[in-house]
Amino acid sequence: MKRLGNRNFDTLRKVKITPNFLAHPEGSALIEMGGTKVICAVTIEPGVPGWMRAQGVPGGWVTSEYGLLPASTTGRNQREAVKGKQSGRTMEIQRLIGRSFRSVIDLKQLGQHTVYIDCDVIDADGGTRCASITGASVALQLAFRKMVEKKMIPRFPMKENVAAVSVGMKNGEWMLDLCYEEDSAADVDMNIVMTESGKLIEVQGTAEEEPFSRSDLNKMLDLAEGGLKTLFEIQRKAIGDEPVKNNTPFGNLGDALAGLKV
Amino acid sequence: MKRLGNRNFDTLRKVKITPNFLAHPEGSALIEMGGTKVICAVTIEPGVPGWMRAQGVPGGWVTSEYGLLPASTTGRNQREAVKGKQSGRTMEIQRLIGRSFRSVIDLKQLGQHTVYIDCDVIDADGGTRCASITGASVALQLAFRKMVEKKMIPRFPMKENVAAVSVGMKNGEWMLDLCYEEDSAADVDMNIVMTESGKLIEVQGTAEEEPFSRSDLNKMLDLAEGGLKTLFEIQRKAIGDEPVKNNTPFGNLGDALAGLKV
Amino acid sequence: MKRLGNRNFDTLRKVKITPNFLAHPEGSALIEMGGTKVICAVTIEPGVPGWMRAQGVPGGWVTSEYGLLPASTTGRNQREAVKGKQSGRTMEIQRLIGRSFRSVIDLKQLGQHTVYIDCDVIDADGGTRCASITGASVALQLAFRKMVEKKMIPRFPMKENVAAVSVGMKNGEWMLDLCYEEDSAADVDMNIVMTESGKLIEVQGTAEEEPFSRSDLNKMLDLAEGGLKTLFEIQRKAIGDEPVKNNTPFGNLGDALAGLKV
Amino acid sequence: MKRLGNRNFDTLRKVKITPNFLAHPEGSALIEMGGTKVICAVTIEPGVPGWMRAQGVPGGWVTSEYGLLPASTTGRNQREAVKGKQSGRTMEIQRLIGRSFRSVIDLKQLGQHTVYIDCDVIDADGGTRCASITGASVALQLAFRKMVEKKMIPRFPMKENVAAVSVGMKNGEWMLDLCYEEDSAADVDMNIVMTESGKLIEVQGTAEEEPFSRSDLNKMLDLAEGGLKTLFEIQRKAIGDEPVKNNTPFGNLGDALAGLKV
Amino acid sequence: MKRLGNRNFDTLRKVKITPNFLAHPEGSALIEMGGTKVICAVTIEPGVPGWMRAQGVPGGWVTSEYGLLPASTTGRNQREAVKGKQSGRTMEIQRLIGRSFRSVIDLKQLGQHTVYIDCDVIDADGGTRCASITGASVALQLAFRKMVEKKMIPRFPMKENVAAVSVGMKNGEWMLDLCYEEDSAADVDMNIVMTESGKLIEVQGTAEEEPFSRSDLNKMLDLAEGGLKTLFEIQRKAIGDEPVKNNTPFGNLGDALAGLKV
Amino acid sequence: MKRLGNRNFDTLRKVKITPNFLAHPEGSALIEMGGTKVICAVTIEPGVPGWMRAQGVPGGWVTSEYGLLPASTTGRNQREAVKGKQSGRTMEIQRLIGRSFRSVIDLKQLGQHTVYIDCDVIDADGGTRCASITGASVALQLAFRKMVEKKMIPRFPMKENVAAVSVGMKNGEWMLDLCYEEDSAADVDMNIVMTESGKLIEVQGTAEEEPFSRSDLNKMLDLAEGGLKTLFEIQRKAIGDEPVKNNTPFGNLGDALAGLKV
Repeated sequence: MKRLGNRNFDTLRKVKITPNFLAHPEGSALIEMGGTKVICAVTIEPGVPGWMRAQGVPGGWVTSEYGLLPASTTGRNQREAVKGKQSGRTMEIQRLIGRSFRSVIDLKQLGQHTVYIDCDVIDADGGTRCASITGASVALQLAFRKMVEKKMIPRFPMKENVAAVSVGMKNGEWMLDLCYEEDSAADVDMNIVMTESGKLIEVQGTAEEEPFSRSDLNKMLDLAEGGLKTLFEIQRKAIGDEPVKNNTPFGNLGDALAGLKV
Repeated sequence: MKRLGNRNFDTLRKVKITPNFLAHPEGSALIEMGGTKVICAVTIEPGVPGWMRAQGVPGGWVTSEYGLLPASTTGRNQREAVKGKQSGRTMEIQRLIGRSFRSVIDLKQLGQHTVYIDCDVIDADGGTRCASITGASVALQLAFRKMVEKKMIPRFPMKENVAAVSVGMKNGEWMLDLCYEEDSAADVDMNIVMTESGKLIEVQGTAEEEPFSRSDLNKMLDLAEGGLKTLFEIQRKAIGDEPVKNNTPFGNLGDALAGLKV
Repeated sequence: MKRLGNRNFDTLRKVKITPNFLAHPEGSALIEMGGTKVICAVTIEPGVPGWMRAQGVPGGWVTSEYGLLPASTTGRNQREAVKGKQSGRTMEIQRLIGRSFRSVIDLKQLGQHTVYIDCDVIDADGGTRCASITGASVALQLAFRKMVEKKMIPRFPMKENVAAVSVGMKNGEWMLDLCYEEDSAADVDMNIVMTESGKLIEVQGTAEEEPFSRSDLNKMLDLAEGGLKTLFEIQRKAIGDEPVKNNTPFGNLGDALAGLKV
Repeated sequence: MKRLGNRNFDTLRKVKITPNFLAHPEGSALIEMGGTKVICAVTIEPGVPGWMRAQGVPGGWVTSEYGLLPASTTGRNQREAVKGKQSGRTMEIQRLIGRSFRSVIDLKQLGQHTVYIDCDVIDADGGTRCASITGASVALQLAFRKMVEKKMIPRFPMKENVAAVSVGMKNGEWMLDLCYEEDSAADVDMNIVMTESGKLIEVQGTAEEEPFSRSDLNKMLDLAEGGLKTLFEIQRKAIGDEPVKNNTPFGNLGDALAGLKV
Repeated sequence: MKRLGNRNFDTLRKVKITPNFLAHPEGSALIEMGGTKVICAVTIEPGVPGWMRAQGVPGGWVTSEYGLLPASTTGRNQREAVKGKQSGRTMEIQRLIGRSFRSVIDLKQLGQHTVYIDCDVIDADGGTRCASITGASVALQLAFRKMVEKKMIPRFPMKENVAAVSVGMKNGEWMLDLCYEEDSAADVDMNIVMTESGKLIEVQGTAEEEPFSRSDLNKMLDLAEGGLKTLFEIQRKAIGDEPVKNNTPFGNLGDALAGLKV
Repeated sequence: MKRLGNRNFDTLRKVKITPNFLAHPEGSALIEMGGTKVICAVTIEPGVPGWMRAQGVPGGWVTSEYGLLPASTTGRNQREAVKGKQSGRTMEIQRLIGRSFRSVIDLKQLGQHTVYIDCDVIDADGGTRCASITGASVALQLAFRKMVEKKMIPRFPMKENVAAVSVGMKNGEWMLDLCYEEDSAADVDMNIVMTESGKLIEVQGTAEEEPFSRSDLNKMLDLAEGGLKTLFEIQRKAIGDEPVKNNTPFGNLGDALAGLKV
C-alpha cells in the first residue's frame, strides 16, 4: 500500500519539536507532525481546584485545555469563545491530555500548585490530540525543570516522558500516524498513549465504519509502538539534558530519564 | 481475590433489563446492573442535523444524550440544566454511546430521521456508560421494529446487538464489571464495546494510577468477552423474537438477529 | 360528563407511591398518578445559600429542582442541560415546589443544612407539578426521619404533610386531576396545594381560554379538597408509622402527624 | 389596623397612568402605583414563533418580557444581561403577564404578528407584577388602536381591559395593594388578575409563612375586587375614548369597551 | 446646511437633566437630549472586585453597565437578558463610561466601595453613550455628596464634572450632536469626552464610510468643545450648589467645582 | 527619555511579517512587533449575516474575531471558550478590527461572501490590537488576490493597505509603539488606524490616569504618522507585488496600491 506523500504504512510524518517557543509560560514547545502544528504551553499557578481543597487532598493538580484556532482547519471552524461553549470533541481531547500526564506525575510533589497544559492547534492535518500529548510532555519537562531550579518544588515530579500516536485501518490494511485525509476515510481509528518505558497509559480504538477483531487491535498496537520509539527520541533531543539544578533527591534530569529508558 | 458482594473476578453483577419501560418513546428499556440503574429511551424525529442537510449526506442520523439524575450518586451531583452546561464527562459518555451504534446501524436505511438515544441514570454504582449501551441496544431494537411495522422505513436497519462492559486492574489483579467502590480504587479502568458477533466497536483503556502492559490489556479483553456473552443473552430475552411485521427484505427480526449470532 | 378512561369528574387517577425508590438520597419516592410518573428525591447537604450566610439568617434552607426526562413526553422534549438553560415553565414549577414546603418546615430546626428536593418526571401525562409535590412530601418525611435518627437535627422539623392536585374547567364543567389530553383542552387550569390539616398553601388558577367566575373558583376548590383527602391517606400508607428514634421533644412521627390530622 | 402611609386596609396607593410614554413602540404607558413605577411598552413585529409555524397554528401571538432596572430596588440588584440569564422570579412574572392577556385577545385576529409586551420596572416598591399588567393593558389598547387605524388588522382584537392587584394577610388581618415593606412581612401574598367585566383570569395565592383558610381566600378576593374597580376607571381615563378609525366590525373602541363594562 | 429639526451644524439638541429621578440609588438623573432619554443611576456597594482584593490594590472601584430597553429603538431590539449575553456594542459603551470617570475620581478616597454607574436608555435617538456620560456625571456628584454627608468617605473624591458629545461628518460637512438619522448616514462618527476644565478624557473617531484627514479631526474637536461648554452649564444647574456637609478637607462642593471651572 | 530596550521615543519595535503562515485559510500572516506575536488569518465563506439577508443589503460582509492564547500573557489568562463568553476587551478589539477594514473594502464587490479576519495572539507584549490590524491588512491582500485569481470576484475589492500603531504619554513625554510595561504605566493610551494614503480610519485616545490637552493629541498623532510610514513599507514587502491574475478592471495589485500611495 502506498500512502499520501509516498509514506509506508509504518512511517511517521516528519516531526519537529521547537522547545521554549513562547515567552511567558514556564514551559512551551511547538510540535509539527507533517501538516499538524500545535503550540503546547505549561503554566504553573498557585492554588488547587475547589474540590481538592474541600476534600483536603494533599499535593497539586494537572489539567489541560485544548483548542483549534478558527483558521486551522479546511473550512473555518467556529470560535468556541463565540459559540459560548466548548464542543464535546474539545472536552474529550482535553480530558485525555490531562489524564495522560496525571499518571506519570507525582501530584504530591507539586505542592499547592495547578499545572495548566494548553494545547492550541495552529494547523490541523490529523492527529492533533496525539501531537498535543507528545509536545506537552516536552513543555512539562521544561516547566518542571524551571520549578526545581526556582526551588518552587523540592524534586523533579515527572517520572518519564509520554508520547502518543494514531494508528488506523482502511480496507483491512493498517497504517501509522494518519493525516486528515486518511483519518476521515478510515474504518478504525485508534490513539495510543505510552510512557517512554513502554507502558500503556491510554488505548482508544474506535470502529468508525466497521467493527474490528482482536488481531487487528494487536497489529495496530505493534505499529504504534514502532512510531512511539521515534517520538521519544525526538522528545529527548528537544529537551536536552543539562542537569536540573537544585533537584535534591533524584539527581539531574538526564539521570532521572535514563533510569526509565526502554 | 474476593470482591465486594462475594463476586469472583470474572462474574457480572446481577443484570435485569425491562423492555418498554416508558409510555411515549418508540423504544425504551430499564437496565439494572447491580446497583446501577439506567433508563434508556429511543425517540425518532423527522429531519436530520443541519450539517447533513448542508452537505447533502443521504439517510438519517443516530445521536445520544446522557445524564445523571442529581440524586443518583453518593452526595448529590449538581443538575447540569442548572449549571447551564454539560460536563466533559457527560459529553465524553454520550459521544461514546452515539458512536457505538452508528457502526452497526445502516444510516442510509433510516430515511430523513434522527434517532435520539437518551440514557438517564437513576442510580449510579459504577459502569453507567456500559449499562447505557447495553440497555440502549434493546431500546433501539424495539424502536426499529416499530418503525418497520409502521412502514416508516422499509427494512430493519440495525445489523446486530451491541453490549458493553467494564474491566479493571487493582494491585495486579483483573476484575470484570466494577462497582463504584472498585472503580474509584482501580489502577486501570477499561470499557469494551462489542457486537454480538464478537467484533470490537470501542476499546478504551485508561491508566488512572499506574501504566499497564500489553499482556494486562489482553487479559482484560479476555475477561470482557466472557461477560459480554452473558449480556447478549440477556438482551435477547428482553427483546423477544416475535416476527417484525412489514420488514420487506430481511424477514422477521428473529431471522435478522439469528444470522448474526456468535 | 364521562371522561377519558371512564373517570367521574371527581375521581382521581390511580395513585401509587413507592417509598425509598432510590439508593443514595436521604429520602425518595416514586409517585405514579395515572400515566404520570415522578421520581422525588430529598438530599441533605451541609451549608446554606450565600444570601443566608451574608444576611446571617439562622437555620437551614429548603429548595427544589424539577426536570422532565427528554423521552417523558409525546414528542421528545429537548434536554435542558443541552439547551444550556431551564425553561420558564421548569423554573416556575420548581419555585412552586420549594415554596410549598418552606411554609410547613421549621427552617430554624434544620441547622446549617440545605434540603434539595429533586423531582424528575419519567413519564408525563398531566399534573406533573402536583404529583411532584405529593411525592416529595413522602420523600421529605423519610429524609427528616433519617436526620433525626442520625441525630443530625434534634427534632422532627416538618409540621405536616402537603399534597397537591389539579382541577379544571371545560365547557362549564369541572373536573379533578386532569390528564394531559384534558389539560391541553381545558378553559381553566388550577393547582391547589394543601396541608393535611386542610389549610391552603398555594392556589394557582389560570384562565387559559376563558375567564372564570368566583363561583367557578369555589366549585373547583371543593373538588380539589375531595381529591386531596385521598392523597393524604395514600401518603400515610407510603410513609408508615414506625416511631422516629431520637426525636427528642415531639415523640414519634405518628404522633407528630396525628396532632395535625383533619 | 393602620398601615404605612396611613392607608386603610382596603385603600389603593396613589395610581397614575401616563399613556404614550415612549417614542418608538406602537403603544406604551408609564404606570405609578405609590413608589412602584413601570414602563409598559407594546411592540408589534411581523412573524410568529417557530412552534406556531411548525404546527400551522393560525393567527398571531402575544408574549411578554419583564425586567427590573438594577437601581430600581433597595440594594442594587444584579443586571440579568450580565449574569447571562433571567432569574426564576423574572420568568415566572413575564409568563404571568403574557398569559393574562392571551385570554382576552383574539389571537386569530392578529394575523401573522407577534405582540411583545415589555414591562420594565424603574422603581420597585411592591406589586410590580400587578402594576405591569394594569399598565400593559393600556399600552395594548393604544397599540391595537394604531394597528386598526393603519389597517394592519381588520378589527380590534382585545375583548376588554385587564387589571391586577395584590392582596395579603398579616397576623390575621387582610390588606389591599401591599408596598414592599408590607409584602416582605406578609404571611400570605396573593395576586388577582381580572377582566373589566369582573371575570377572573389568574388567582395566585401563596402562603409565605402560614397556610390560610378558604374564608381568608374569599376575604382577600373581595378586597381585590374593590381595588380593581378603581384601577379599571383609571385605565379608561388614560386610554381616552376617541373612536378607533377603520375598525370595521366592532365600531369604535369606546363602544367596544362599553359593552364589556361591569 | 440645514439639519433635521432646523438645527445649525453647531447646535445641540434640547437638553434637560432631572436630578434624583429614582427612589433607591445614592444618586440618579434622567437626561434628555432631543429624543434620547437615559436614566443614570449610581449605587454604592461595600467591597471591591476580586482582582483588586487579590492584588491588594488599595481604595475602591468605579464601574458601569449600560442597557437599551427593548422598546427604546425603532424596531424592538432583543432583550439582552433573554439572549443571555450583552452585545459587543453594549460592552464597548459600558467600558467607555466606566473609563471616563475613573480618571477624574480619586479611587483611593473611596475606601472599600464599588461605585456602579447604571445607564439605561428609555428612548434612543442617537448619542446614547454621550448622554449617558453627561447624565452619569450628575448622578455621581449627587451620590458622592451623599457619601460625604453620611461620613462613608472623608472627602469628596470627584475632581470635576465630565460631559460627552458626538460630532460627525457627512459629505464634507461637520455637525454637532447627531440624532439617529444623521448618525446612520454619517461618513465619520466621533465621540468626545471632556472634563469641565477642558481636558480630553476620550477621543473616539471612526470612519464609517470614508477615512478622514487631520484637519477634519481638528474641526470636529472644535465643534465638540463648543457643545460641551453648554452641557457643563446644564450639569451645574441640575446639581445645584448647596454645600456638601462633612466634606472635611476640600470645603463644599460649590468650592470644589468652582476651582475647576473653564 | 530613554525607554526599555534603549528605544527612542519615536522608534518602532522590531517588526517582521511572515506572509502565508498557515496552510488552510485564503490569506494569513504572522506579525511580530517586539515581543508581541499575532497570527492573522483571512477565511472566505459563502453567505452573509442574517441581518443583511433580512434587509436585502447587496454585497458581502467583513468581520473579525480576536483572541489571546491562555499562555500568551504574564500569568495565564483564562480561556474564553471555557469561561463561556468573550470579555468586553476582546469584543471591543474585534469590533475595532472589523470596522477598520470595512471602510477600505468595497463590500459590494465581495458578492455573497463573508470575510472572517481571525487575529490570535500567541505572545502578548503590548499593542496587540494594532499588530492585529497591521498583520490582517497583509492577510486580506493575499486572500483577495486569491479570490480574484480563482475568479470568485471580478475585481480587487480593497482600496489600500491599513496599519495601526499605539502612542502614549507618561509624565508629559510622548512615545511610539508601547510595550506592555510602558502601556501599563502610561497616563494616556492612544491607537491610530490609518490608510496608506494617510487618511485616518480610527483615532482612539484614552486618559487612563490623567486627562490630556489638544496639543498632546496633536503631538501623539504626529508620532503615530511617523511609525505608520515604516509599517506600510514592511507590509508592502511582505505582500510582494506580482500581478493579480484576472483582476479585470483595476490591473495588478501593484498598480492598485501605487495609485493610493502617499
